[in-house]
Amino acid sequence: MTQTPEQTQSIATPAVLVDLDVVKRNIARFQTYANQIGMAVRPHIKTHKLPQVALMQLKAGAVGITCQKISEAESMVAVDDRLNDVLITYNIVGAEKLAHLRDLAGKVRLTVVADNAVVIDGLAAAFEDAPTPLRVLVECNTGADRCGVATPQDAAALARRIANAAGLHFAGLMTYPPANGAAQVQAFMTQAKALIMANGLAVEVISSGGTPSMMQAGDAPVATEYRPGTYAYNDRSLVARGVCGWDDCALTVLATVVSVPSSNRAIIDAGSKALTSDLLGLTGYGHVLGRPDIVIDQLSEEHGRLISTGPIGLAVGDRLRVVPNHACVVSNLFDAVHVLEGGKPAAIWPVVARGKVT
Amino acid sequence: MTQTPEQTQSIATPAVLVDLDVVKRNIARFQTYANQIGMAVRPHIKTHKLPQVALMQLKAGAVGITCQKISEAESMVAVDDRLNDVLITYNIVGAEKLAHLRDLAGKVRLTVVADNAVVIDGLAAAFEDAPTPLRVLVECNTGADRCGVATPQDAAALARRIANAAGLHFAGLMTYPPANGAAQVQAFMTQAKALIMANGLAVEVISSGGTPSMMQAGDAPVATEYRPGTYAYNDRSLVARGVCGWDDCALTVLATVVSVPSSNRAIIDAGSKALTSDLLGLTGYGHVLGRPDIVIDQLSEEHGRLISTGPIGLAVGDRLRVVPNHACVVSNLFDAVHVLEGGKPAAIWPVVARGKVT
Repeated sequence: MTQTPEQTQSIATPAVLVDLDVVKRNIARFQTYANQIGMAVRPHIKTHKLPQVALMQLKAGAVGITCQKISEAESMVAVDDRLNDVLITYNIVGAEKLAHLRDLAGKVRLTVVADNAVVIDGLAAAFEDAPTPLRVLVECNTGADRCGVATPQDAAALARRIANAAGLHFAGLMTYPPANGAAQVQAFMTQAKALIMANGLAVEVISSGGTPSMMQAGDAPVATEYRPGTYAYNDRSLVARGVCGWDDCALTVLATVVSVPSSNRAIIDAGSKALTSDLLGLTGYGHVLGRPDIVIDQLSEEHGRLISTGPIGLAVGDRLRVVPNHACVVSNLFDAVHVLEGGKPAAIWPVVARGKVT
Repeated sequence: MTQTPEQTQSIATPAVLVDLDVVKRNIARFQTYANQIGMAVRPHIKTHKLPQVALMQLKAGAVGITCQKISEAESMVAVDDRLNDVLITYNIVGAEKLAHLRDLAGKVRLTVVADNAVVIDGLAAAFEDAPTPLRVLVECNTGADRCGVATPQDAAALARRIANAAGLHFAGLMTYPPANGAAQVQAFMTQAKALIMANGLAVEVISSGGTPSMMQAGDAPVATEYRPGTYAYNDRSLVARGVCGWDDCALTVLATVVSVPSSNRAIIDAGSKALTSDLLGLTGYGHVLGRPDIVIDQLSEEHGRLISTGPIGLAVGDRLRVVPNHACVVSNLFDAVHVLEGGKPAAIWPVVARGKVT
C-alpha cells in the first residue's frame, strides 16, 4: 500500500502511522517459524514501546517480553498485568537502579543479564534477602563486540559466581549476535553450556536475538529462545537486507511537503526529530513510498530534503509516507502513534515506554 | 571542568546535565558582540527547549524568541507570558496548523515566514478577519539549499503578495545561511531589499542565523537580527569548528560504565537514545570529558561503545560526562534535565518543548 490513506488527511504532520494488520502479519510470520523449529519467542519491546503490541505478541505465542532498561519494563508492566514475564538484557549498575529492580521483581517473573563480577555482586547484595531469587543470564560476546564475556570459560566462571550467590539463580546464557552469526552462537553456546553443565549447573535458557537473521535462528539450535525486535514493524534497513518488502513495513512517518524551492528539490516537515539520523549503512534517511526515484539526502531537525534526478513532481501541501531507516528510534521520538486498521485510522496510542533510558 | 561533579553521584544515568553558569556566559558573550555591531538577537529555543533559559536570553537583551514549529511556541508561551514575541521560521501548511497559528497570534506578537504562494495564500485566508495582521517574512535561499526563494526577484514578488493580503503584514526577510555565508547573505538581502523598497514597501526586519558563523554576523550588516541556537549550550561540533572550547559546553550527558569486556573497550549506558546518531561530519558520537584518547565509535540504542588505543583504564560503575556532537537533538530526547549552579545540582527542569514536531 504505497498510497497515503485518504482518512489520514486530518492528522497533523509529522505523525507516525502504525498499520496493525501488517504488525499482526509480521508477528505471526516469525512465531510460525519459531514454532516449527521449537524455539521460544521473547520479543524486544524497544521497537514499538506499546503494551498493546506486546499483548499481540503474547497472544501469538510469545513466552514473555524483553526490555533493555528497567524504566522501560516498569512503564510496560504498569499498564497491563498480563505482561508478567520480563527479561532485561542489560547490566544493572548502581544502588538507585537496584532498588527499582528489586521492586520490579516483586511484580513479575524477572530475569536479568550480567557480563561481569561487579554487576553480579551488586545484584547479589540487592537480592540477598529477596523472597525469590533473581534469575540471571550470563551475557556472552559471540562476535558483535558490544557487551558480553569473551570466552565460554569466562561464562562458566560467572555462572558459578551467580549460582553461589544466595539471592540469585543462574538461569542460562544470553547473546546479541552479529549479523549472520548463527554459527558463532552455536559454537560459543555449545561449549559454554558443556562447561557449565560439567560444573553441575543446569542451563535452562539460551537466548539469542536480532531481526536481520531471525529466519536463520534454526541454524543455532543450541538456543532455546529468540528475541526479535524490529520484526514487528520492519523498516528500510530490513528491506535493504532483503528480509522483507515495503508492504511489510508497518510503521511509516506521515509528512507534508512544505516547500518546493526548485524543480528537483522538495522539503517535508519531517526531519531528524521525526526520522532520526540513523543511517544503518544506507544512503539517505528514508524511503518515500511510491517514489523510488526520490532520495532524502539531508535532514535538519524539522526539515527533510527530498531530491530527485528529474522533476520532483510534488506540490506544497502534498502528503507522503516515509519508511524510516530504523523503526525503533522513530518510536522513541513520538508521544503517540496513530494506528490503522483496515487501512483507516482506528486509534491514537500513547508510546508508553518512550524516552525510558534509565 | 572535566571532573564529574561529586554531587551528581545520586543521579540515575544516563542523564543530561546543564551547567547554568556556562549557559549564562555563552549567552552574554554573543549578546555583547551583537550589541557592539548593533544587531538584535532572537535566539532559537530548539537547543534548550526550556522557558527558563529563554528568559535568561531575554534578560540578557534578546528581543524575542525563535521557534521552528507552532507546538514548540505554544508550549513555551504557555509557561511564561514574558515570552511574548515569537518568530516561527517555518512554512505553515494545513487547516489544523493554521487554526493553531491564529490562536497563538491572539497571545503574542507573532511573526512567521513563507517561501511560496501556497503558504502565503493559506495564511491570508486564515487571517483575513484577524484583529491584527499576521507579520510575515519571506524566506530566502542564500546558499544552504533548504527552503527559501531562489532569487531576490522572487523575494520581491512574494513580498508584494503578502502586502496585498488583507490579514497579512509584510515584515521583511529571513534566511538560514550556509556556514560562513555572510557574503551571500549581504549580497542577496541587499538586492532583495532594494527591489522591495522600490515597490514602496518597508523592510523592517532582515533575520539571519546560525551559531557556527555567529561571530561573523557583522560581515552581513544588512541583517537587523540574528537567531543563534546552539550557542547557549555549545557542543562537540562547535568545538571542532573552533567556535568554543570544552569549558564552554554547558550540556553534557552523564553516563555510567556498565561493562569493560576487553582491555581497550568499555560500554556506557548512553546510546543513540541519549546521544543521537548525529555525526555533523565528525568521527565518533561524542567527547568523553578528560579522555581525549577515547573514541565513542559505535552506538546502539542503549549502549555506547568506547574504544582507546591503549588500555582504557575504566571500571564498571565509573561515571563519565560526554559532550554530544549536537546538543539540540539531545535536549529533544530527555523529559527533564538536571541543572547545575556553582557546579552542583540545583534543580530538575522539565524539557517543556521536547517532542514538539507539529
